[in-house]
Amino acid sequence: MGSAIRGYAACSGDTPLRLFHFERRSPRPDDVSIEILYCGVCHSDLHGSRNNWGSAKYPMVPGHEIVGRVTATGSDVTRFTVGDYVGVGCMVDSCRACRPCGEGLEQYCDSGATSTYNNVDRHDGSRTYGGFSESIVVSDRFVLKMPEGLDLKAAAPLLCAGITAYSPLRHWRVGQGSRVAVVGLGGLGHMALKLARAMGADVTLITRSVGKESDALALGAHQVVVSTDEEQMAAVRAHFDLVIDTVPYQHDINPYTTTLAPDGTLVMIGHFGRLEPAVNSTPLLMKRRAVAGSYIGGIAETQEMLDFCAGHGIVCDIELIDIQQIDAAFDRMLASDVKYRFVIDMASLKNEVQT
Amino acid sequence: MGSAIRGYAACSGDTPLRLFHFERRSPRPDDVSIEILYCGVCHSDLHGSRNNWGSAKYPMVPGHEIVGRVTATGSDVTRFTVGDYVGVGCMVDSCRACRPCGEGLEQYCDSGATSTYNNVDRHDGSRTYGGFSESIVVSDRFVLKMPEGLDLKAAAPLLCAGITAYSPLRHWRVGQGSRVAVVGLGGLGHMALKLARAMGADVTLITRSVGKESDALALGAHQVVVSTDEEQMAAVRAHFDLVIDTVPYQHDINPYTTTLAPDGTLVMIGHFGRLEPAVNSTPLLMKRRAVAGSYIGGIAETQEMLDFCAGHGIVCDIELIDIQQIDAAFDRMLASDVKYRFVIDMASLKNEVQT
Repeated sequence: MGSAIRGYAACSGDTPLRLFHFERRSPRPDDVSIEILYCGVCHSDLHGSRNNWGSAKYPMVPGHEIVGRVTATGSDVTRFTVGDYVGVGCMVDSCRACRPCGEGLEQYCDSGATSTYNNVDRHDGSRTYGGFSESIVVSDRFVLKMPEGLDLKAAAPLLCAGITAYSPLRHWRVGQGSRVAVVGLGGLGHMALKLARAMGADVTLITRSVGKESDALALGAHQVVVSTDEEQMAAVRAHFDLVIDTVPYQHDINPYTTTLAPDGTLVMIGHFGRLEPAVNSTPLLMKRRAVAGSYIGGIAETQEMLDFCAGHGIVCDIELIDIQQIDAAFDRMLASDVKYRFVIDMASLKNEVQT
Repeated sequence: MGSAIRGYAACSGDTPLRLFHFERRSPRPDDVSIEILYCGVCHSDLHGSRNNWGSAKYPMVPGHEIVGRVTATGSDVTRFTVGDYVGVGCMVDSCRACRPCGEGLEQYCDSGATSTYNNVDRHDGSRTYGGFSESIVVSDRFVLKMPEGLDLKAAAPLLCAGITAYSPLRHWRVGQGSRVAVVGLGGLGHMALKLARAMGADVTLITRSVGKESDALALGAHQVVVSTDEEQMAAVRAHFDLVIDTVPYQHDINPYTTTLAPDGTLVMIGHFGRLEPAVNSTPLLMKRRAVAGSYIGGIAETQEMLDFCAGHGIVCDIELIDIQQIDAAFDRMLASDVKYRFVIDMASLKNEVQT
């Protein structure tokens, strides 16, 4: 016997999200029940809702940047108690048995991690629904502790945007003096600037748009390079150890691969799909450069990231909205008109008149 | 006052190579003069001669898999003496001052290594001419010692094909139990099989063509996967730590990226140019896979490779030809009709009637 709750769901690719009644399961022995306080709005919520990837199953309750308060725990749960502030990101389960899971890389689980929404629970086959809702029930292994001192609403997007930027910076060993470029200044990009700066890197924003310099410098960049300016691009040729490409749509990566120093890596974290125009392999061969991808981060690494952010006073720059504004927010995201992440104040759902 | 010598040169992209008279410089203080005994025929000799890359300057004397005997040394040369058997590969110089040169990565020299032919000497501006010739004069820093016990003619292609396969295997730390796939069974591919096997890897050949199994197993593969067989490809999904892609022309790499395990890398060593059909970034993001390139190897690493080959009894499988057969050899290479490398017996040039 679960609990009847409310959320906002996409019911097709071209209709607004609307109020949706559904049920959360009663806590299993390892489960944590969470009242959702805030939920960030990720570009993939937009892609998913509008079925840009062709994998949408409706009704879909998006949302995987969840911060809330524990309201109940299963009998085996020892790490959380009622009242704790906790987070849930993009995954709510994985096989827990394969090599990646054993190495703390649940996001690369051999059989695929269970995503927070638009997926199916591994145990009872029920559909997963995300954080645009009043509450969620998640296995304790996939629940994060929110460290003290973080502004909860501004910390919500750390659960996806934060860890997605943090994981490749750590994996490719960014530290004091590393030369890091961040391509694109959105939700991911602004976190990559803050995190790379906090790790001691020399940080450059590469952007197509002029006029972002003061914002980028305030966020942590040491310099800004406008990618359409040939002279500026020539000045950073073969320069960077790591390029974090955050652009969430198809784009030409060739101008960026040539900015990599020998043995440098361009890591794509925003775009799932075709690399077109065609990537030129010659700059890769001639300096042993690589083009890689990275996807969120493991659960232990996500906790590490939250603690790192608390220690460095890092949160996201957000604009708080009511859930009733979600479609307008999607449209503004498409127009790159948000600095830098929308976060839904879930009180707006609680207060919505019952329909 | 240099020496007048003879070689075979391409004089345009669509005419056969022909006898060409030119001059080698007198040895500078750091130079080694080498009588060429054997020269391997690389796919890039064909690409270069026929101007497939658009950068040919004619007349061009190809050849960068050179084995010969020292005939004279400059006054500062201490590591070589007359009579030594030596090798010269794809580079004859570099800036020697940049970070890559300082790290023994002369092939990634910031200002570009001086290639053995179709390039310009850094000191006197003269054109470089390659190993399809009677002799060559090279700075001692770019001359390799041929270890005892290697069959010289079969060792010639180690100077390019050998090091091109060896360097990425070492850089990506292939060792006991590593799962390595080699795509393509040509000059590069057959060396990659032998070297990966000698390093202790579990080695798979991936090929489009059926019927290569017995050859591949004899060369060192543990198994062969036919890339057009969906079932065989599915069996190696997310399996390999490293894929060495040796195919020297444009081809679809997407079937191979998905054979990589999490954190695996596909290294391109054969194809310079467009990656088309478009690379799909999704398999890269979803398992933190990478597509990288690698280009020959540094001079110290080339010496290490020669010594490794001598220690493991590894040489190339070759077909010895006379220089007068070079155009027919190019045509057979285009038809993949060589097992696995042509090597020119330079006695055939010495014995050619003076014209």
